[in-house]
Amino acid sequence: MSLTLHQASAPVFAKGLKGLATVLRKAAAHAEAKGFDPAALLQARLFPDMFPLVRQVQICTDFAKGPIARLAGEEPPAWNDDETTFEQLIARVEKAAAFVAAFGPDRIDGAEDRDITLVRRGETSVVKGQTYLLEQAIPNFYFHLTTAYAILRHNGVEVGKKDYLGLT
Amino acid sequence: MSLTLHQASAPVFAKGLKGLATVLRKAAAHAEAKGFDPAALLQARLFPDMFPLVRQVQICTDFAKGPIARLAGEEPPAWNDDETTFEQLIARVEKAAAFVAAFGPDRIDGAEDRDITLVRRGETSVVKGQTYLLEQAIPNFYFHLTTAYAILRHNGVEVGKKDYLGLT
Repeated sequence: MSLTLHQASAPVFAKGLKGLATVLRKAAAHAEAKGFDPAALLQARLFPDMFPLVRQVQICTDFAKGPIARLAGEEPPAWNDDETTFEQLIARVEKAAAFVAAFGPDRIDGAEDRDITLVRRGETSVVKGQTYLLEQAIPNFYFHLTTAYAILRHNGVEVGKKDYLGLT
Repeated sequence: MSLTLHQASAPVFAKGLKGLATVLRKAAAHAEAKGFDPAALLQARLFPDMFPLVRQVQICTDFAKGPIARLAGEEPPAWNDDETTFEQLIARVEKAAAFVAAFGPDRIDGAEDRDITLVRRGETSVVKGQTYLLEQAIPNFYFHLTTAYAILRHNGVEVGKKDYLGLT
């Protein structure tokens, strides 16, 4: 037996997004409990030329909905990157989780060899579905998920590895 | 067609470890160019109760060698966690990459349903190979890889996403 492409993608993103939503909820509660302006966390970054939390979360969700749509041979929906509150940001994560959950095995399996066309900064590249998932989508998804987590930990929010793993 | 368990594991870890080695090499060069004590970076952490860089790298490599060995039905080798220099840390990453590369499809494929027994803090749990890989090994591997990257970026080391992705 072997893994299906669906098993290696949709539930993986769903679990990570669950973890991201938990971490963001704890951050919002932390800001409220401490009397912090939530924007101080939303705009926090680890270095001046790194993206702030809000953008890390937007990109993380994009690396879930984008790959799932593309593997299914569809154009990913464009979402406005206009969240300014934790409530809106958590809603975006939940929307991404619902989007991902709507794609069953019938729409994803068999895309291993599908050509995925990516356009980035005007440059077009074509990559096979399986390579796209394993070498681009998943590493980028976890990169932005972990960076969001790291920004919050760095700012004293008490989140743990189990939250990140979607186990809480 | 579908993914094999080997495709979803060994080359994924190998690419991430390549990225980690690149990031560590750039960090060592940065410390030397700036005249920093390398230990300041090796012991840097994002929050007092988070692990420092050296430990993040050790754990990241453990989440490559451990899962690969366990999927193959073997006991993971125990390595001393005694690195104190970038040179030693990079050697550990390269050793992990070589370890992972030694496991071909014949040793990994078919482990989807293999019972993997994990002992953590005295508690024993048993999980299927596929679940172990997708829900524990890979998310933890990227967590520590990204956190190592984040610690270095936070300290001004000029590394980029392409380094992380193992593309440089």
